Amino acid sequence: MSANDSTPGRYTVAQLAERFGLEYRGAGDRLIAGVGTLAGAGPEQLSFLSNGKYAAQLAGTRAGVVVVREENLADCPTAALLARDPYVAYARIAALFERLPSAPPGIHPSAVVAPGAQVAASASIGPGCVIEDGAVIEDGAILGPLCTIGPDCVVGAQSRLVARVTLVIRVSLGKRVLVHPGAVIGSDGFGLAFDRDHWIKLPQLGGVRIGDDCEIGANTTIDRGALDDTVLEEDVRLDNQIQIAHNVHVGAHTAMAGCAAVAGSAKIGRYCMIGGNAGVLGHLELADRVTITAKSLVTSSIREPGEYSSGVPLQDNRQWRKNAARFKHLDDYARRLSALEKDK
Amino acid sequence: MSANDSTPGRYTVAQLAERFGLEYRGAGDRLIAGVGTLAGAGPEQLSFLSNGKYAAQLAGTRAGVVVVREENLADCPTAALLARDPYVAYARIAALFERLPSAPPGIHPSAVVAPGAQVAASASIGPGCVIEDGAVIEDGAILGPLCTIGPDCVVGAQSRLVARVTLVIRVSLGKRVLVHPGAVIGSDGFGLAFDRDHWIKLPQLGGVRIGDDCEIGANTTIDRGALDDTVLEEDVRLDNQIQIAHNVHVGAHTAMAGCAAVAGSAKIGRYCMIGGNAGVLGHLELADRVTITAKSLVTSSIREPGEYSSGVPLQDNRQWRKNAARFKHLDDYARRLSALEKDK
Amino acid sequence: MSANDSTPGRYTVAQLAERFGLEYRGAGDRLIAGVGTLAGAGPEQLSFLSNGKYAAQLAGTRAGVVVVREENLADCPTAALLARDPYVAYARIAALFERLPSAPPGIHPSAVVAPGAQVAASASIGPGCVIEDGAVIEDGAILGPLCTIGPDCVVGAQSRLVARVTLVIRVSLGKRVLVHPGAVIGSDGFGLAFDRDHWIKLPQLGGVRIGDDCEIGANTTIDRGALDDTVLEEDVRLDNQIQIAHNVHVGAHTAMAGCAAVAGSAKIGRYCMIGGNAGVLGHLELADRVTITAKSLVTSSIREPGEYSSGVPLQDNRQWRKNAARFKHLDDYARRLSALEKDK
Repeated sequence: MSANDSTPGRYTVAQLAERFGLEYRGAGDRLIAGVGTLAGAGPEQLSFLSNGKYAAQLAGTRAGVVVVREENLADCPTAALLARDPYVAYARIAALFERLPSAPPGIHPSAVVAPGAQVAASASIGPGCVIEDGAVIEDGAILGPLCTIGPDCVVGAQSRLVARVTLVIRVSLGKRVLVHPGAVIGSDGFGLAFDRDHWIKLPQLGGVRIGDDCEIGANTTIDRGALDDTVLEEDVRLDNQIQIAHNVHVGAHTAMAGCAAVAGSAKIGRYCMIGGNAGVLGHLELADRVTITAKSLVTSSIREPGEYSSGVPLQDNRQWRKNAARFKHLDDYARRLSALEKDK
Repeated sequence: MSANDSTPGRYTVAQLAERFGLEYRGAGDRLIAGVGTLAGAGPEQLSFLSNGKYAAQLAGTRAGVVVVREENLADCPTAALLARDPYVAYARIAALFERLPSAPPGIHPSAVVAPGAQVAASASIGPGCVIEDGAVIEDGAILGPLCTIGPDCVVGAQSRLVARVTLVIRVSLGKRVLVHPGAVIGSDGFGLAFDRDHWIKLPQLGGVRIGDDCEIGANTTIDRGALDDTVLEEDVRLDNQIQIAHNVHVGAHTAMAGCAAVAGSAKIGRYCMIGGNAGVLGHLELADRVTITAKSLVTSSIREPGEYSSGVPLQDNRQWRKNAARFKHLDDYARRLSALEKDK
Repeated sequence: MSANDSTPGRYTVAQLAERFGLEYRGAGDRLIAGVGTLAGAGPEQLSFLSNGKYAAQLAGTRAGVVVVREENLADCPTAALLARDPYVAYARIAALFERLPSAPPGIHPSAVVAPGAQVAASASIGPGCVIEDGAVIEDGAILGPLCTIGPDCVVGAQSRLVARVTLVIRVSLGKRVLVHPGAVIGSDGFGLAFDRDHWIKLPQLGGVRIGDDCEIGANTTIDRGALDDTVLEEDVRLDNQIQIAHNVHVGAHTAMAGCAAVAGSAKIGRYCMIGGNAGVLGHLELADRVTITAKSLVTSSIREPGEYSSGVPLQDNRQWRKNAARFKHLDDYARRLSALEKDK
């Protein structure tokens, strides 16, 4: 059994059961060399059933073994691994079959590392990276091609910048942080003062602090603070094209879906879920365990956990036009309704 | 008549008429060296009238020749080329006058190409590109500066990555695909399982397949699939800053305007039009020939072709505030209205 | 007193008062070595009170000196500098304490500069930059690492491209323009003509002109014009992830917050404020001094200055669902309300 995750091997189902503490139900044993969907997996692949929507696919699966809840065992035509949460169990198992690109320790000859930068011997610095004075790259960190690391930035141990990531200045990443291509962290906050007839820029003197185990999506932007720091606590998960403005504070374990945006100095709690393209206005506070559904706009602070939404439903354009036109008079309708009730 | 599109030449109107199968109406002939708007074109330039909004500008144009529909011929003060669809005819003609940046075959000395990568001799690899083991660059493909091509990626024949494009891993581009700067294709899908008090990442083991003649806008992101692939069929056109999540399937000839976003596993039909900043939630299906207007959110599957919208109209902020406040009580108003009707 | 802003020095309060024309109220003098928030500043730091929300923090501040309005002077426990607009005064002072990354004149040996490019001797070209034939880099301009400057682009004097900025083709930046990482300027506009069963691309033959003192945020995209240019007049301020389509014209001193988007050929006036994730449809005109609140969509031209909004308020998801469902019948309710009024 290979211990090297970067060259995925093969595992017997019994090995998987033991490694992940799952119960194996089935006759004999078999080799598993990969994972797949219920519909697509073959006899050498493992699959899983978590979402009830796919239950109908269980009967026809050709997978070598399926991770299921006990309640689905009777319907499973193949060998099974029993799990309380098959999705979590599957996530752990699937990691065995991920082929990570090789990242040999050392600095690629085409990288430009300033004399005042500190790069751990075990770190891997890819082609074309630029690391400036005062930057620190810790043990086992991996920088893919074309990353730029500015002054006073720290890339924590075992963190990975996939490719073309920019840390501008005063950005500190914790351990095991994963940053996807095109992300920009530590850019100037959007701070302007209006002086009679033109804008004056406020220098952005703070930094960004990102906790352990965070993930930052492709082309996501996180501005540095104006005076204090912009902060993401540990295990914050940001999808692609998210915008985090200066001095935002995001609590641990909060996840945001693609294209969400948080304006300056907002404070998001722990274990929040921010839906795709949702927005939070500046200086607001969201309690822990607040869920905001997709494309909603938060315009005042939220003190209670729960799920919150804004927006109106999609309709056929002709119907929608009629209703939308009426929205402009909703206040009038409400008054007229009250008047009718009084007159009754 | 120059056959080399990269050094635009001059053409007589007669040559253009013949080349594009258009009828020439006018006396004599003249040389055309470029294209311009009705308002801005001079005697050596060709213009066109397609959108009726600009019809009033026809009378005053100084263009050497104008592409028009027959119905506008009488109002055209200059020579004319007749076209059933002047916009399409203009698009074909204008391509003659585009000066494309030179892209000599070969690998720029500053590029870093892994020994296990295959680069066609006729391909052009720009400065600072990084091409990893297992990547394939086909005939006539052009990579502008600072592109990174990861393992098991294919750039199809005649495709062009303008500059600073990243293909992460297992990304296959068809022929003649055009990708604009900052695009990231093949980044990790946003797959997370919640394990009691923290997130576990699901490895993203699929890839991305992009068909022939697709166009991908600047800073657009397309994640690779979790198990199966994310797919764009042929001739899909994506504007800038679009987000395509893992396992999305986009049908041929569908176009999306800037900042649109499609969540995981959604299936968009063929010939759809997705408006700017519109969104489609995960796992939904859209039939062929569905149009979604700007900033609308699709929250359930759409089975019929047609145009769909959500949102409310813009108003003066003071008016809007009154109406928006009433929206919070709309269900109450509806009940009270029904009650009044019953009481009548 | 250091004249070199890149190595911040120390200033006496009296020096600051004189330099910025402010009145000093307090006994003796003291050295100031930095700036901070009212809550965080220490005795060697200057702070300010502008937003009334933070007035309560004034009494407890440990700052060495605070910039205040005269009306707050009595409540200030420390030395004070009097300003009509403390935010503007603070912005000017804080600039003294910004440490800008060093950018020595000259071309980094890893940069690739085409023979036909012109680079001023006083310009600083960072590692890995690629400058193509026909590009011009003027006096004192700074290009951080990994910028690409295409043909016929001009980077005006004293402009700064922080890192990884791409100017594609025919892009002209004025003086003192600041562009943040990941921005793409001059990419192809999204111009397509539909020819029976597939798309034809319209060549994008225009450019982009950006005026003096503009600022362009991280991962913002600005497409070049189809025939004429896309234009930003002077002192336009764009936050991160903004999308400006081809042929848009933005008037001087207009500011847009993160994730705003403007569709093709729209004309935005001077001194406008476009909120976060707000959108403007194509071909519209906005008068001077129009404010659009966050996430609003502008669907017709606006002739009068003022503040405009769309959207509905956030609610608890259960409440919201009830109201949102009713929106689909708003036109019906309005008719029934009128019918009741007639019957009365």
